[in-house]
Amino acid sequence: MIPFKLTDELLVKIEELIENKRETELASLLAEVHYADVAEIINELDEEHATYLLKLLDSEKTSETLTELDEDVREAILSNFSAKEIAGELDELDTDDAADIIGGLPKGIVQEVISEIEDREHAKDIVDLLRYSENSAGGLMAKELVKVNENWNVLTCVKEMRAQAENVTRVHSIYVVDDEDKLKGRLSLKDLLTTSTKTNIKDVYIPKVDYVNVNEKPEEVAKIMSKYDLEAIPVIDEIGRLVGRITIDDIVDVIKEEAEKDYQLAAGISQDVEADDSIWQLTKARLPWLFIGMMGGIGAASIINVYEGAFVKFPILLAFIPLMQATAGNVGVQSSAIVVQGLANDTIKGEVWGRLGKELLLGLVNGLALAFVFLFISHFGFDTSYLVSLTVGIALVTVIVNAAIIGTFIPIFLQKRGIDPAIATGPFITTSNDVLGILIYFSIAKVILNF
Amino acid sequence: MIPFKLTDELLVKIEELIENKRETELASLLAEVHYADVAEIINELDEEHATYLLKLLDSEKTSETLTELDEDVREAILSNFSAKEIAGELDELDTDDAADIIGGLPKGIVQEVISEIEDREHAKDIVDLLRYSENSAGGLMAKELVKVNENWNVLTCVKEMRAQAENVTRVHSIYVVDDEDKLKGRLSLKDLLTTSTKTNIKDVYIPKVDYVNVNEKPEEVAKIMSKYDLEAIPVIDEIGRLVGRITIDDIVDVIKEEAEKDYQLAAGISQDVEADDSIWQLTKARLPWLFIGMMGGIGAASIINVYEGAFVKFPILLAFIPLMQATAGNVGVQSSAIVVQGLANDTIKGEVWGRLGKELLLGLVNGLALAFVFLFISHFGFDTSYLVSLTVGIALVTVIVNAAIIGTFIPIFLQKRGIDPAIATGPFITTSNDVLGILIYFSIAKVILNF
Repeated sequence: MIPFKLTDELLVKIEELIENKRETELASLLAEVHYADVAEIINELDEEHATYLLKLLDSEKTSETLTELDEDVREAILSNFSAKEIAGELDELDTDDAADIIGGLPKGIVQEVISEIEDREHAKDIVDLLRYSENSAGGLMAKELVKVNENWNVLTCVKEMRAQAENVTRVHSIYVVDDEDKLKGRLSLKDLLTTSTKTNIKDVYIPKVDYVNVNEKPEEVAKIMSKYDLEAIPVIDEIGRLVGRITIDDIVDVIKEEAEKDYQLAAGISQDVEADDSIWQLTKARLPWLFIGMMGGIGAASIINVYEGAFVKFPILLAFIPLMQATAGNVGVQSSAIVVQGLANDTIKGEVWGRLGKELLLGLVNGLALAFVFLFISHFGFDTSYLVSLTVGIALVTVIVNAAIIGTFIPIFLQKRGIDPAIATGPFITTSNDVLGILIYFSIAKVILNF
Repeated sequence: MIPFKLTDELLVKIEELIENKRETELASLLAEVHYADVAEIINELDEEHATYLLKLLDSEKTSETLTELDEDVREAILSNFSAKEIAGELDELDTDDAADIIGGLPKGIVQEVISEIEDREHAKDIVDLLRYSENSAGGLMAKELVKVNENWNVLTCVKEMRAQAENVTRVHSIYVVDDEDKLKGRLSLKDLLTTSTKTNIKDVYIPKVDYVNVNEKPEEVAKIMSKYDLEAIPVIDEIGRLVGRITIDDIVDVIKEEAEKDYQLAAGISQDVEADDSIWQLTKARLPWLFIGMMGGIGAASIINVYEGAFVKFPILLAFIPLMQATAGNVGVQSSAIVVQGLANDTIKGEVWGRLGKELLLGLVNGLALAFVFLFISHFGFDTSYLVSLTVGIALVTVIVNAAIIGTFIPIFLQKRGIDPAIATGPFITTSNDVLGILIYFSIAKVILNF
């Protein structure tokens, strides 16, 4: 498969065709392009061109493309659609995608759009979904699923399934419910294919079925589905009724977003931004962390100011400030990153004290290795006295051990407090280690050099 | 669903039961536990206990648990299994899982294990898979799939499918091939359910099918499957023959591993390690980056040494070294993280120069904001002259712009050279920005303060 690649040439060509309103050429050019790729193209066009192109597609492709567009682009384009036109697109979509799109519409128009949806059953399902928080299993699930009553036989079941399957793009499991719609178990397509048509569902269904509660957090759903290799999971409400289904493609998005968020937090970027966002958006996401870092720098400056007298006697001490700071920062980030990942994957077990002990040992090993190399380099490279070298060496080990312990402890502490530990890596830990590192360095120098 | 939680109490209880060889109690305790959870338990046991427990499970659960174990644990346990026993487990597994397990066995035993596999067709498929690199679509795929010949009719197709489906846990699509086994298209289960049995496959199959080449990189396969929301994708060889199938659960693992690797690289950890790995493994992953950071610190020390004379005249300049360093480091990591993510998601389009221009502007905005706040703080908080404050302010802006440009440029450069740009974030960029930041600071100070 030759993957679609959006080139500048293609974009220029499409814009030209739009300018000249060459509808047939555009239609034939895009006929073979997947809607996810069409969305990529439209994301790059200005609002007018984007609206024109989207309306040119056949109705099914228009609606599917809508689900793949960047949110801001989609909202801009839909502002040029009438309520009836939007409702027409929603009629073509699965309930979860339709609910996502409605969630981004201006409040004033939502009522009208919903009332224009032709399939009233579909509209009802969408309205149901709008009630759930985006940050819950309910906000992720779709109402489309295939369910059968435990009191039916295989024949009825196959008939019902055919009817239901019309609305369900992918059938993973057939869910079995009782007369009150409570989830009892599941049936596989394979079982249906290989069982006599007169058998009662009650006698063949598998009572063991994984499910999640409608209020479960998306990350938790992702963990369950990926751990147990599930491609779909049913969602039940507070009293056990089957209310929806989450499919793995939505979970893949959750996993990717989660990973990107953690990565950005570690790098000191506080919001979900992309390289192509505006300078203003990027500044909002980046500047707060830079201020935190700056406060650390100013804190460090105050410490250095206090010890100013010492530098007259031992000017060489100053030269190693960046070394202390860089080492403390690096060790802190390393330690916290491992703990943050371990917490996210549930692979951190046992006592906090055991973990701190291990980090202490690890810090000692790394610290001694670095200090040894430093003593070697400073002996040949710098004009330092024996005592100054010793000071820097001991400070290095202490600073590393300290940074390792802080880097380990802060994420665990945040997790216990219910705060996302990913926030701890990056500038937050670097900054506290900067200040502490310099303080430790000078305290040790003061003791050894006696100034 | 109440998620399984491995508690210390449960572990102690299981170890006690193993010590006392209480087989019936262990069996009934683990009967309802999912194999992924059994693997979690076994990962925590010592080799002898782990082997005992694994052999106690029924054969299907043993083999499935094997696929979920940590690699080192699995290899240790399997060293207590005979070739015949291992082959027995492989007989129960899908070809991709079986090939993964064989990949971890000592070379000397592989031949014997394969010869002991009862199902010779299965053994042949596994041997086929062993030829592919782990880092390719071939290394990810399984041989289990449902395929039909385009010359059959629906009835033959359904019969054949039933037979084939015995070996395939999940049927996503039915792939259509010609007489030479070349991939022609696909059929959905739904289509089969709703088409007359006498129809020829040739007349109903969908000729449009996504596929990947057997040599495609796993990240590329992941990108295609998640972009196009695919739950399975067929794999073809160099001449278009259908050779296997990749399912989304394997891709979820690829996405998670990829994200973890990038996160660890950004934090300065060079190998795939976990919080529970040994101190030696963790040191190997962390120490090299600390040395790079240390070289930066020593580089900075050399620069400071050169300017030593200046500090006698302007000692306050020294106090702001940590500020310069921290700011340069933070900005560099922020810029590079956004570019690395953009490159990974293919969302970075257009010219390198445009992107550098944008980062320059962004750096200016952030730099001016920080410099302004700094001037305000230093005016009230520090005993600095007007010229020194001006020096620090101008240096801040310059250092930020420089760090932003370096953070943007290095990942793009690495990507063009075919090197994973994720390596650029973290200590590598922090270190070069440390040294450059201090150099810029002193150069500007030299010009303004004229020392």
